[in-house]
Amino acid sequence: MDLVKVGLLGFGTIGGGVAEILLGKTDEIERATGKRIELVKICDKDLTSDRGVPVPDGVLTDRLDDVMNDPEISILVELIGGVEPARSFVLRALEAGKDVVTANKALIANCGSELFAKARALGRTIGFEASVCGGIPVLQSIRTSLTANKIRSIKAIVNGTCNFILSEMETKGAAYADALKEAQRRGFAEANPTLDVDGSDSAQKLCILAQLAFGADVDWKQIARVGVDAVDAIDVKYAKELGRKIRLLATAALGPEGLALSVSPTLIPEDSALAKVSDAYNGIEIVGDFVGSVFYQGWGAGRRPTASAVCGDVIDAALGRAKITFDSLELWGENREKIATVDAKKVSGRAYLRLGVEDRPGVMAKVAEALAKREVSIASMLQPPKASPDDEFASLIILTHEATSEKLDDAIAELDAAPFVRGKTIRLAVRD
Amino acid sequence: MDLVKVGLLGFGTIGGGVAEILLGKTDEIERATGKRIELVKICDKDLTSDRGVPVPDGVLTDRLDDVMNDPEISILVELIGGVEPARSFVLRALEAGKDVVTANKALIANCGSELFAKARALGRTIGFEASVCGGIPVLQSIRTSLTANKIRSIKAIVNGTCNFILSEMETKGAAYADALKEAQRRGFAEANPTLDVDGSDSAQKLCILAQLAFGADVDWKQIARVGVDAVDAIDVKYAKELGRKIRLLATAALGPEGLALSVSPTLIPEDSALAKVSDAYNGIEIVGDFVGSVFYQGWGAGRRPTASAVCGDVIDAALGRAKITFDSLELWGENREKIATVDAKKVSGRAYLRLGVEDRPGVMAKVAEALAKREVSIASMLQPPKASPDDEFASLIILTHEATSEKLDDAIAELDAAPFVRGKTIRLAVRD
Repeated sequence: MDLVKVGLLGFGTIGGGVAEILLGKTDEIERATGKRIELVKICDKDLTSDRGVPVPDGVLTDRLDDVMNDPEISILVELIGGVEPARSFVLRALEAGKDVVTANKALIANCGSELFAKARALGRTIGFEASVCGGIPVLQSIRTSLTANKIRSIKAIVNGTCNFILSEMETKGAAYADALKEAQRRGFAEANPTLDVDGSDSAQKLCILAQLAFGADVDWKQIARVGVDAVDAIDVKYAKELGRKIRLLATAALGPEGLALSVSPTLIPEDSALAKVSDAYNGIEIVGDFVGSVFYQGWGAGRRPTASAVCGDVIDAALGRAKITFDSLELWGENREKIATVDAKKVSGRAYLRLGVEDRPGVMAKVAEALAKREVSIASMLQPPKASPDDEFASLIILTHEATSEKLDDAIAELDAAPFVRGKTIRLAVRD
Repeated sequence: MDLVKVGLLGFGTIGGGVAEILLGKTDEIERATGKRIELVKICDKDLTSDRGVPVPDGVLTDRLDDVMNDPEISILVELIGGVEPARSFVLRALEAGKDVVTANKALIANCGSELFAKARALGRTIGFEASVCGGIPVLQSIRTSLTANKIRSIKAIVNGTCNFILSEMETKGAAYADALKEAQRRGFAEANPTLDVDGSDSAQKLCILAQLAFGADVDWKQIARVGVDAVDAIDVKYAKELGRKIRLLATAALGPEGLALSVSPTLIPEDSALAKVSDAYNGIEIVGDFVGSVFYQGWGAGRRPTASAVCGDVIDAALGRAKITFDSLELWGENREKIATVDAKKVSGRAYLRLGVEDRPGVMAKVAEALAKREVSIASMLQPPKASPDDEFASLIILTHEATSEKLDDAIAELDAAPFVRGKTIRLAVRD
């Protein structure tokens, strides 16, 4: 069977890119793979908008049945996004005997367990390379080339919108709100950017990485997360003075207590590979016991890079390679070795704290005392000059040594209630 | 068939790492892949040296027939290195019905066409991920995830020894000879480092990348190459003054005239991802028409990272995934679309020139004239202060605009013969 027919659900930005590849490169892909992969149906409610891709007559339809009920379509590409109705459509496609390819991280993070069990029961596959880091083939690497490794840790910039915002704040000294507006103007950020900027999107992607790299079955909502909306222009400036840059990092680290997961704006050394990931790029560092550190960087979103990843998965499914990987990996499977995850409160790490404190002798000592009481020890302290000599309050920057999230929370709660502290203490993560 | 037996030829550094994984992680790999992969024979002349890996009785042998004639061994790992006898052993293993995995770039670069034709004729596979960039899963990415892309260009640091030498020169101001000695002391460079430092090793790896990414059947000896042995400490210093770092880059770029390939120490912007690749790391940037730029960094050599890649290939072969990829790709195949390569003399690029010139008025004009005659135009010129005011000769640094290699050669030949030029002009590449 050298002809493989594909159906596409969702003809938006990414759908347009996928159509561009599958309709425009059919011959090229056939030469490179020995399979003729034909996009025969595209289903979308909107039959009229111009997506910049010429679509042959009879391909575009608004009737779901045209795709689902066509027994010749063996691969369904789901690009609707969100949980429902994507979930129902994917289940229906699997039941109709189709393999599925999706770019939908919310769907995989929320329903991975259900969807993969269904696919396994039916002997079908689900490809989802495009759901994390867009065009960067990082899931493929973890699933195949790095199989001989025990993965020790992952540090990743998985949200291009947030990285663009931090880059703007860094290079232009922009305020958070202005940087967000610029991201929206350039089409990086949604009109409602909440899921990006509050760290939810990164937590969903981290949940997928944790499943692949560690076999950990994690509820993404349980991952401790702080978003870029917690970062002020002044923090970017102080970070710079400390020889660091701020990146929204999703991290997973395997320790004696299990797998520790977190999402937070993080101060990292300005010379590290992750600090060099700028604008809307994504980057990911994986450490394995044999391979050591491997670092990847590329476009994490956008029509063409995401379409590249989706079509890589389509080809993988068409060639039958996806089936082998899928069957051997047992993603979200019952039989996988269970791995303990560290409770969010017990996750340990260094922290950056910015407090507004009363500008008088003895206050620093009191702050240090509140931290010491919770066994949070101070690595360095910095008191930047006040904006005006008349200010009653001054900023105090503290980099702590390793401490659990719980102890930091307690110490910060005490400080925020103290009469010599103004407002709420800002807390970001620090990694070396 | 859930038990797969593996034989290993060559129990040196990498062989030790492969044995460590396959003997020590059998259960782990079985859990992750559903296959029990057993290393049952290791063949080496040396039966006594301690490789730091406990080997069960009956596994180590010095008789080649124990591996080749065992019909139960379905995968042969070749880690002897060099062309012969590795080539004969690989051919024999293929004829005996075994799949082959190798880390041997010299073998693939020199005999790829013969070996892959043989493997195809016999329905067998050859895995060679470890032959380029060690642990970085870059060949796998090109072969699978990026299939939907037309690759436009590759820029790669593929030799860790050379990168270490350049790093030493850069960070410690070391002379080339001292940096080379330090690389040898640390075990990065061979006692006879010629193939590394003259660019041959990089040209062999570029030849493999050109086959995979562009389907180009290239004789690596035809690739224009300059090695790190052409770089002087003073060039590293001048590069820095120009906001650049020097890296030994292997580059492939697809243009209207065909595929242009070259290996040369290259001045690249100090802020580029490749410039951040330091010490013995490797790095590679691939540009595809859809994915855009993807960048990878990791250990390109060494026992453990290389073993990680070798075992990734072993697992790929054991699962049957290698067969699918191998059959679809037609590497070094007769039926692949032929791609023209640009003759080394016609390869165009920017250049860095360092001349020793007589320190008197009018000389600069003569140099500029010699270049202009060959249509080599000057982007910038720099005359650093002389080491001593008594020196009759001064250094002259020139960055040119794009010019073909041929025209640069001609201009340099004329300059080197001129009475106002001392010694031979140093020429490195420049990329932006």
